[in-house]
Amino acid sequence: MTKQPYALAIHGGAGTILKSTMTPEKEAAYEEALRHAVAAGETVLQAGGSALDAVTASVCALEDEPLFNAGRGAVFTTAGKQEMDAAIMDGRNRDTGTVAGIFGPKNPVKLARLVMETTPHVCMIGEHVLELGRAAGLEFPDADYFFTQARWDALQDTLAMREKGEDDDDPARRHGTVGAVACDRMGNVAAATSTGGWTGKLPGRVGDTPMPGAGNFADNATCAVSGTGHGEIFIRWTAGAEIAARMRHLGETVVEAAEHVVMKDLKDNDGSGGVIAVDARGNLALPFNSEGMYRGWVREGDQPKVAIYRD
Amino acid sequence: MTKQPYALAIHGGAGTILKSTMTPEKEAAYEEALRHAVAAGETVLQAGGSALDAVTASVCALEDEPLFNAGRGAVFTTAGKQEMDAAIMDGRNRDTGTVAGIFGPKNPVKLARLVMETTPHVCMIGEHVLELGRAAGLEFPDADYFFTQARWDALQDTLAMREKGEDDDDPARRHGTVGAVACDRMGNVAAATSTGGWTGKLPGRVGDTPMPGAGNFADNATCAVSGTGHGEIFIRWTAGAEIAARMRHLGETVVEAAEHVVMKDLKDNDGSGGVIAVDARGNLALPFNSEGMYRGWVREGDQPKVAIYRD
Repeated sequence: MTKQPYALAIHGGAGTILKSTMTPEKEAAYEEALRHAVAAGETVLQAGGSALDAVTASVCALEDEPLFNAGRGAVFTTAGKQEMDAAIMDGRNRDTGTVAGIFGPKNPVKLARLVMETTPHVCMIGEHVLELGRAAGLEFPDADYFFTQARWDALQDTLAMREKGEDDDDPARRHGTVGAVACDRMGNVAAATSTGGWTGKLPGRVGDTPMPGAGNFADNATCAVSGTGHGEIFIRWTAGAEIAARMRHLGETVVEAAEHVVMKDLKDNDGSGGVIAVDARGNLALPFNSEGMYRGWVREGDQPKVAIYRD
Repeated sequence: MTKQPYALAIHGGAGTILKSTMTPEKEAAYEEALRHAVAAGETVLQAGGSALDAVTASVCALEDEPLFNAGRGAVFTTAGKQEMDAAIMDGRNRDTGTVAGIFGPKNPVKLARLVMETTPHVCMIGEHVLELGRAAGLEFPDADYFFTQARWDALQDTLAMREKGEDDDDPARRHGTVGAVACDRMGNVAAATSTGGWTGKLPGRVGDTPMPGAGNFADNATCAVSGTGHGEIFIRWTAGAEIAARMRHLGETVVEAAEHVVMKDLKDNDGSGGVIAVDARGNLALPFNSEGMYRGWVREGDQPKVAIYRD
């Protein structure tokens, strides 16, 4: 049944990841967490599993890790609440499910998948979709499971700066999304993304993650994409859909198309961040226009790699 | 200051609009409502106003009219509630604001515009954005202002069919969105869209309207688009962004690009509906793949036109 080698890439957010504030211990912890998330997805692909299951597994691993801004480590709104967005998309038929502004399930990406698989809708918000998740047996931990002191402190810093009339334009606080893209041995691609959004976002803000074609996209005809960065700009420049459009209409490779959108469309319009992308041949692209992007990737037969800064 | 003649198009939804169930009185009422909405936008453009103000005025007129599924005439969810989505986008810089799943303001499109103009975000849901609207002085009528018997009866019909295990696949109940696109004398384009969604949608369902690049899009470099139809398919095929992408990358005209997306991408994938689009020269396109689409249009110097069925 093997048609081709599988490939997988993950990210744990992009932004101003300064070497000066990074300790060797912190760096090792991030790298270990990235390796773990790559392994979670690769285990699925190695066993002949689908790209859809692989990206679900990798994103769950990233959501469970408090170092990253999704699931357990989600950031706080100005109201001191956590509101999460998540998405999953299947390249075989562009089927997709997303959730926005939710708090409750341990793994928001599983709730997005439930929307895709059990409702006639793409995107859901509010109490009803949480009820669907509970009824389907998704895990809903105690609320304090999601609390992390570092995220809370980051909110206090942001609010203190705003109090003084300073603009908190530190991209590190605007960023932080996790995601995975994969191509399985059958040549099917999938993408999944999950995030807590911005530190100090307004309550009810919905980002690019739950908008297919902005922060998450998958179509076998072109590629699967997961983005991380200044979400509002990813939406306005329809980042994911545009990478696919350049491949379809201009004949660009996934590397060329992803580079163009990240280094030109987004960068020229204050859209700091990056994407991970894979095409249906397993070609990977991981461009970012910020100082760093937590990332990892593997192609069948190769050793998995993880990285934070530019090479 | 006049660079070129203005142009404007509006829609009041698409779907199975059967001539057999239409009375002359009903038809006249729809046509009158469409004429009124065209006039509301044209008045702005005639006075030298912006495309942004023109689409706001036309969509407000459509929201105020209970014949259409937006604002006052919004349909009901399975829970018997009204949840509205709205969007506006400015072709000058792709600035955009959207709201999803809201109930309260008389004109949801004005709340979307408030998000665009006063927050750092694109899309907002929930109580906080309603508070922003109240604080800004938007009109919040009594809840019974939004009740229309015909929409309530339509929900009961849908629920009764589901009770009997029948699938209510009547596109007329899935459709119904209002929108406007305009190009002003300066050659700036804008788009606005507003909707109650599907009759019998699940509570918390978010459609294509508040997702820029799906049901609403504007960019002077290409065109402004407002869609109406099976929203989930518009999202998965990123309808608005794809029309623009075909113009940019393939050099298609707005008419060619809109036709392709509606008559091929959407139609081949169960995406019944249509779009209205205008480019920065004032060229209009109003393709639909359903039996009818409530629509109206005008170019400076011409008589306004309204139509329901195919010519």
